[in-house]
Amino acid sequence: MGSKLVVNNYGSFDVVFTHGNGSTMYDVNGKKYIDFLAGIAVNSLGTNYKPLVEAVQKQAEKEIHICNYFMSDVGIQFAEELLKATGFEGIYFGNSGGEGNEAAIKLARKYGYLNGGEKRRVIYTLENSFHGRTMATLTATGQEKFHPAYFAPYVEGFKTIKANDWDAIKTAFDDTTAALLIECVQGEGGVNIVDAEWAKAAADEARKAGAIVMADEVQTGFGRTGSLLASDELGFKPEVVSFAKGVAGGLPMGGILFRGKANDVFKAGDHQSTFAGNPLACAAGLVVLHELQKPGFLESVKEKGEYMRKEIASWKNPNTGDVRGKGLMIGVDIENGKSALELEKKLLANGLLTSTAGKNTLRIVPPLNISKEEIDEGLSILKKTLETL
Amino acid sequence: MGSKLVVNNYGSFDVVFTHGNGSTMYDVNGKKYIDFLAGIAVNSLGTNYKPLVEAVQKQAEKEIHICNYFMSDVGIQFAEELLKATGFEGIYFGNSGGEGNEAAIKLARKYGYLNGGEKRRVIYTLENSFHGRTMATLTATGQEKFHPAYFAPYVEGFKTIKANDWDAIKTAFDDTTAALLIECVQGEGGVNIVDAEWAKAAADEARKAGAIVMADEVQTGFGRTGSLLASDELGFKPEVVSFAKGVAGGLPMGGILFRGKANDVFKAGDHQSTFAGNPLACAAGLVVLHELQKPGFLESVKEKGEYMRKEIASWKNPNTGDVRGKGLMIGVDIENGKSALELEKKLLANGLLTSTAGKNTLRIVPPLNISKEEIDEGLSILKKTLETL
Ligand SMILES: Cc1ncc(COP(=O)(O)O)c(C=O)c1O
Ligand SMILES: Cc1ncc(COP(=O)(O)O)c(C=O)c1O
Repeated sequence: MGSKLVVNNYGSFDVVFTHGNGSTMYDVNGKKYIDFLAGIAVNSLGTNYKPLVEAVQKQAEKEIHICNYFMSDVGIQFAEELLKATGFEGIYFGNSGGEGNEAAIKLARKYGYLNGGEKRRVIYTLENSFHGRTMATLTATGQEKFHPAYFAPYVEGFKTIKANDWDAIKTAFDDTTAALLIECVQGEGGVNIVDAEWAKAAADEARKAGAIVMADEVQTGFGRTGSLLASDELGFKPEVVSFAKGVAGGLPMGGILFRGKANDVFKAGDHQSTFAGNPLACAAGLVVLHELQKPGFLESVKEKGEYMRKEIASWKNPNTGDVRGKGLMIGVDIENGKSALELEKKLLANGLLTSTAGKNTLRIVPPLNISKEEIDEGLSILKKTLETL
Repeated sequence: MGSKLVVNNYGSFDVVFTHGNGSTMYDVNGKKYIDFLAGIAVNSLGTNYKPLVEAVQKQAEKEIHICNYFMSDVGIQFAEELLKATGFEGIYFGNSGGEGNEAAIKLARKYGYLNGGEKRRVIYTLENSFHGRTMATLTATGQEKFHPAYFAPYVEGFKTIKANDWDAIKTAFDDTTAALLIECVQGEGGVNIVDAEWAKAAADEARKAGAIVMADEVQTGFGRTGSLLASDELGFKPEVVSFAKGVAGGLPMGGILFRGKANDVFKAGDHQSTFAGNPLACAAGLVVLHELQKPGFLESVKEKGEYMRKEIASWKNPNTGDVRGKGLMIGVDIENGKSALELEKKLLANGLLTSTAGKNTLRIVPPLNISKEEIDEGLSILKKTLETL
């Protein structure tokens, strides 16, 4: 079985998918699954969404990749529309969330150097955050379990601060701080929403100390929380936002948006990536952006999320605790001595795709355009499985 | 103009491409260009290559992305065929060359730790090498110009060694060495081919000291030099190979292949990437692999490369010096006080896409299936432009 040949990053389950339709997936045996996972918050428009498929098909005939000496027509259009929609002033494209955060880290360091010299080198991230698996983003990740001795030495210049800790932000930032990087809703960490007032206060303090403020919106961005960017709603107005996951509806793309003090920090030659901003991903990104901009779309993400959270909470199942989230990024704490991972496995067997996060939380991040029927079919599997856990 | 909004990583030229056919590209003004660049050694089968386009179009309807909890049918097939074709035992997918090398670096560190504890941490790379733009791969890159003070502190544990320096390898490696990482043909560094005998001797010495040997084949891999992997031809049998660029014919994909002592180093949870091994890129990768495996294909890459080098050398143009390369990875030193960058700009104006590398070298890396007609058309532009430089 080929899955044994590939590094099973997560300890893969022995299911092989062949195709899907909307928020319904099929494995090699023809078994059907309701998709409450979306490839971990990636397939924002589900699988085989016709407008996305057609855009990819059309672009594949024109040009898949050029190189970033040049621009493509579709790349320019996507960049322009993205900046207009988000209110940012510049963009750098990469190919993943990790690459987006690597760009953010490099930008923050250069900003610190230009505005405080060699001592302004520290980037603060939140305890329990997740920022990626490259050496620098792994170091930035505020969870000790991600820092085994065998990958050391880690990258210097990172510190963590506890989210929603009002005392900490009074003293943390000084003339050694280059940036504060906030994961708006901690996805891998357990679907923990940062308090908006605290985020604003933390951003104020960081800026007072001369730092810039950055948001990791790799998981929260592009409609996942019911806003184009979660940081818009939280209101702390980051100078840099990193993105990836859902931005191109499944095609690999990541990057950063920047503005204000973060503008003009990167100069030609400072950063690059061969595949960055390739026309194929940009064509897909345009479809996602247009979908998110349709009247009522983001509202419907909020409504579906609220409906799902309400439903799950209303069961008062003794195996569930806190049900929380923002938009279609939902966490359900598993209690009563039961394991979220065991639940995930049973749900998989029963035809529902989910994942776990944090200590013992079930994470639900379906396609943003999931239908009412698929939601209800999935919820019914979840309800029954919870009862027999 | 949108290109001003996007970080112009290389100081982009003001050309906007819309589409192409084979090794011929067209810009928004309908101007035609012969493609001696292939998106910097990426579009291995050119633009709008029908079997590749059709595979992408078909796969887009089935599933673009799942997530690496699971496998896809096409992902398994690609992994299996790739391992069979290359003789490696395991594979990790990422989305770029930088991500491939990040995986290689992490694997080397873990290997070092497991086989020598905290002191076996050093990864040797070659002077003048290029390994990527993430913090760790930037540090690994053996060129000081890539290490400005404003991105410091860089990642600890990297040292460089001079390629083809026989004395250096006698003393460099010891019980602090985790790995030796060899860029088989330095692409960005100026198309410098490492000496096969030296590479074998260096690998022997590194292994004697208890280290593993890795090859960065991001630019050389997948047919570029006329072999499936350039390290096969050089004969030093690396335990780890990083790849990207041409592997999926333009779709973002990178990763590492590993075997022998590098096997079983990564365990579940050690490394991951959201988009890694997505079905769309795997479907494209299969087409590329099948093409490379067609009888005579790799031979034809070698022949075309030799033909081009011979032709260029035969002009004895006073502005050109050494003409070297392997397969369709060609470097032409520019001399006589002329600038390779100026030549690149003039060629662009005259309808030929190329790039520069190293100090003053013109780099030619066309699609591997470029036609004889396109080669001759491109060479004729090059010849005339050189004469008027
Ligand atoms: C908040 C956040 N940042 C960064 C990453 C890393 O993204 P990628 O896996 O695309 O490198 C993730 C992935 O889960 C994430 O959730
Ligand atoms: C040899 C080599 N390694 C690594 C890289 C980095 O690859 P990427 O730009 O896909 O991150 C490159 C890119 O040019 C390269 O030539």
